[in-house]
This record gives sequence, structure tokens and C-alpha cells, in this order.
Amino acid sequence: MSIVDKLKWRYATKKFDTNKKLSAPQLDQLLDAIQLSPSSHGLQHYKVLVIENPGVRAKLREAAYGQPQITDASQLIVFAAETNMDEVYGKNFISLIAETRSVARETLGGLEGMVLGAIASRTPEQRVLWAQKQAYIALGVLVAAAAALGIDAGPMEGFDPAKFDEILGLKEKGLTATVIAAVGFRADDDHFSKLVKVRRPKNELFIHI
Amino acid sequence: MSIVDKLKWRYATKKFDTNKKLSAPQLDQLLDAIQLSPSSHGLQHYKVLVIENPGVRAKLREAAYGQPQITDASQLIVFAAETNMDEVYGKNFISLIAETRSVARETLGGLEGMVLGAIASRTPEQRVLWAQKQAYIALGVLVAAAAALGIDAGPMEGFDPAKFDEILGLKEKGLTATVIAAVGFRADDDHFSKLVKVRRPKNELFIHI
Repeated sequence: MSIVDKLKWRYATKKFDTNKKLSAPQLDQLLDAIQLSPSSHGLQHYKVLVIENPGVRAKLREAAYGQPQITDASQLIVFAAETNMDEVYGKNFISLIAETRSVARETLGGLEGMVLGAIASRTPEQRVLWAQKQAYIALGVLVAAAAALGIDAGPMEGFDPAKFDEILGLKEKGLTATVIAAVGFRADDDHFSKLVKVRRPKNELFIHI
Repeated sequence: MSIVDKLKWRYATKKFDTNKKLSAPQLDQLLDAIQLSPSSHGLQHYKVLVIENPGVRAKLREAAYGQPQITDASQLIVFAAETNMDEVYGKNFISLIAETRSVARETLGGLEGMVLGAIASRTPEQRVLWAQKQAYIALGVLVAAAAALGIDAGPMEGFDPAKFDEILGLKEKGLTATVIAAVGFRADDDHFSKLVKVRRPKNELFIHI
């Protein structure tokens, strides 16, 4: 199956098979894909929570209009944007580059100036929005990678971010819950899996110039 | 190669081979992937410009700090968020569902209420941000799909959205340029392709609960 066929196979899974869990290698592959997601300057402006704990998930479900996939999927993935994208964050990133590529930090002065400039040019509110947008890229990569691996995923915006932040203690960590995805395997009787996929036709969605 | 290996192979391509263009089927597959991207309620809050015209691309390059990939890639993809996510947009979407699934529009009343509520609950500014975030999901899916297909892509935020909107006449269309990607094939001498990929280690990026 091509990646396009895989993307046709996927759908926003609403009902998961509670008996089917991802294997450790399957979960690892999903986390690899998230880790490999691109982000502005490569800053990876987020952390990603991988939640299995049933008690925590029960609380999160309440903060997400009771949606069953929060508790019933194999794992719940919470993309939490960094709320402290500051100079220190930028400098740590440059140090990580120097370390990863085994180059002297001083040789990265030009890049450092660009990265710190990108941070400094934004207000604190703009930085959070910037971070949130990068988290959405990672969500897109997760959804595509899950499809490629034959794993079901249900991306969701329908939750109360403030309550999620409180339940998960994110504020103290300089994070805020941005978007989430339930991952696992569809239940045989999820009627959403039988619905014809609805998409705007190409002549409406695309403009060729 | 697994999807993870493909994501390791990819990088933010900066220098494209100007002699290598996507075949029509390759471009079609990328557009299929974009069309299949998930979005909140499935509203696809954006249009996507596929730009080949050299004159237009020369102007866009000026509005993107002269970055050569704007003109040199096989195509430039511009994700343009809808700035008029209103009741009419929502109702048209419900009509599209009814048509695609061959069901009477009246049977979709519950869904319509939810979709129109999601739109009405947001201020005009929040609707644009909402739309932009969905465009970032599509960018993530594009990047992953391109990698899966062995096609290079360079996602970019470094451009002047107001100038892009003006050059492309987006304001009149109720759109605003949000994020872009150059697609094609890497030049053999793009030194960025030789750099070790830098990513936060898993124990920093992920929090297991």
C-alpha cells in the first residue's frame, strides 16, 4: 500500500479496541516519528506526554467532554507547547547542535544569532502560538506515520486545555496542552470507520499558479 | 525502508536540483496526501497553492529573504488559511458531507449544530488561528508523505505573509499565507543534507505517565 492508500485507510478513530495495545516496538516507532518531526529552526518547541495511567486518563476524559477514546485507546499522546521559549532555550538548542555534530560551539555564532533573533522578535504570546503551531506539525507527522504503520490514531482538539494543564501539572513545567491524539487499534464496531471520507474536491482545495 | 527510516532520510532541503522536477504522478500523490490530511471536524480550513510560474516565484523569493529554494524547487506549496470561517462555510461543509455520503442533509442536524457551534464560539481572530493550526497539520502530513515517497521537501516559515498575500491576491480570496514548503529533489551539493540531524533526546522530549 502506498502512503496515499494508507492515508485513505486511516480515519479519526473514535472507538478503540480496549484489548489491543501497541507493542513496545510499535510505540517506539510512533515516538521516533514525533521526535523526527520538523519544527521552526529545529527548536522542537514542545514536549510530548505519553499517557497510560488509567487514573490520570479517567480525569483527562472528564476534561474532554467524556470522550471514551481518552481512556480506551492504547495510549493518549498530549502535545504540550513550551510556554518559556526564551534565550536560555535557544542557547541550550545551540549547545545541543554543537554536541550532536561534534563542532565547537563558537562556530555556530551565525546560527545562534538567527535563532535568538527569531525568539527575541516575538512577544511572549506570539512565542506560545509559534510553539503551538510546531506541535501541530508533529501531530500531522504522527498521524501519517501511524497510518504508514497500520496503527490507528484519533487527533483531537475537543478538550479543556486549562484542565489538562492542571491535571498533568504542565504549568509548573512551562508547558501547555495544545492538541492530543489517541493511538491504538480501531474497534470492529466503530461505525465511523465505515463512513465515506469527506474531502473538498481538488479543484476547490488547490489553486495552481 | 520503514517510515521512521524515511523520516531520518529527509531533511529541510535548502538547495534543490533545478533539473529534476516531480513527475505528474508524484505531484498528484503529494496533493492527495494534503487532501487527506485531518483537520478539526474535517473542515479543511485552508486552500493550498501549487506554484510553478517562474515570474510569480521570483516575486515570492524577494518576499522570503531571497531564499533560493522558492524559485529552484520543483514546486512551491503555499498553505493559505481561510480568513472567513463563518456560518456559510460550515453549512457548505455539511452539504458536502450529505452529498459525499448520499444522505439527506436533514439527518446531519446534530453534526451541523456542533460544527456551527465550533465556529460561532470563536472570535474572528481565533478562527484564523484555528485555521492556521490546521494548515500546520497538513504541512506535517505533506512532509511525512514526501519522505515516504522519496521526495524532498523544505518547510519554511521565513517569509513575509503580508507580501505573499499581496503577490498571490489572497486577501480578496479570503485567505492568508500561513506556512510554505518547497518540494522537489535535493541538489547533490546541498551541504545541509550531510549534517547530522539534531533532535532532543527522547528522555527530554517525552514524559511518560
